[in-house]
Amino acid sequence: MKFTASINVMPLKEILDPQGKAVTRSMENLGLSEILEVRIGKHITLTVDAPDEESARKKVDEACKKLLANLIMESYEFELEAQLS
Amino acid sequence: MKFTASINVMPLKEILDPQGKAVTRSMENLGLSEILEVRIGKHITLTVDAPDEESARKKVDEACKKLLANLIMESYEFELEAQLS
Repeated sequence: MKFTASINVMPLKEILDPQGKAVTRSMENLGLSEILEVRIGKHITLTVDAPDEESARKKVDEACKKLLANLIMESYEFELEAQLS
Repeated sequence: MKFTASINVMPLKEILDPQGKAVTRSMENLGLSEILEVRIGKHITLTVDAPDEESARKKVDEACKKLLANLIMESYEFELEAQLS
């Protein structure tokens, strides 16, 4: 059975996000001063092949911990959805 | 009134995603061969100050078009949520 995972990896709140800060300033320069507190992370989609949702969840969690997120600086969250075959 | 926007910017389906391809291959090397078709984009959160949801939506749309997404190579989608003051 195949599942689609949608994963968000974001810089931890305690950690400076220089890219987000730069974009926040650029918004002001573009006349969009109503836009504040920009934070930029990664959005990852993938397909996972697993017998059930429980084991799909474990695989995605392992992928996040081993490769997709750096847990010292980032946090992650994800949603799973079964693919219609 | 303040709203939080959660924006996903992804490479268009027709466009190669070399970073995603590299990560898909790395999954196999890490023993996670059940993980396929990795695509990597950006997840952006921001605060927008606007009188109502309609105008907040317009501001975020403008920010995406002008700065956050490159519409030649990427598509975007977002959700808005009112912040409790």
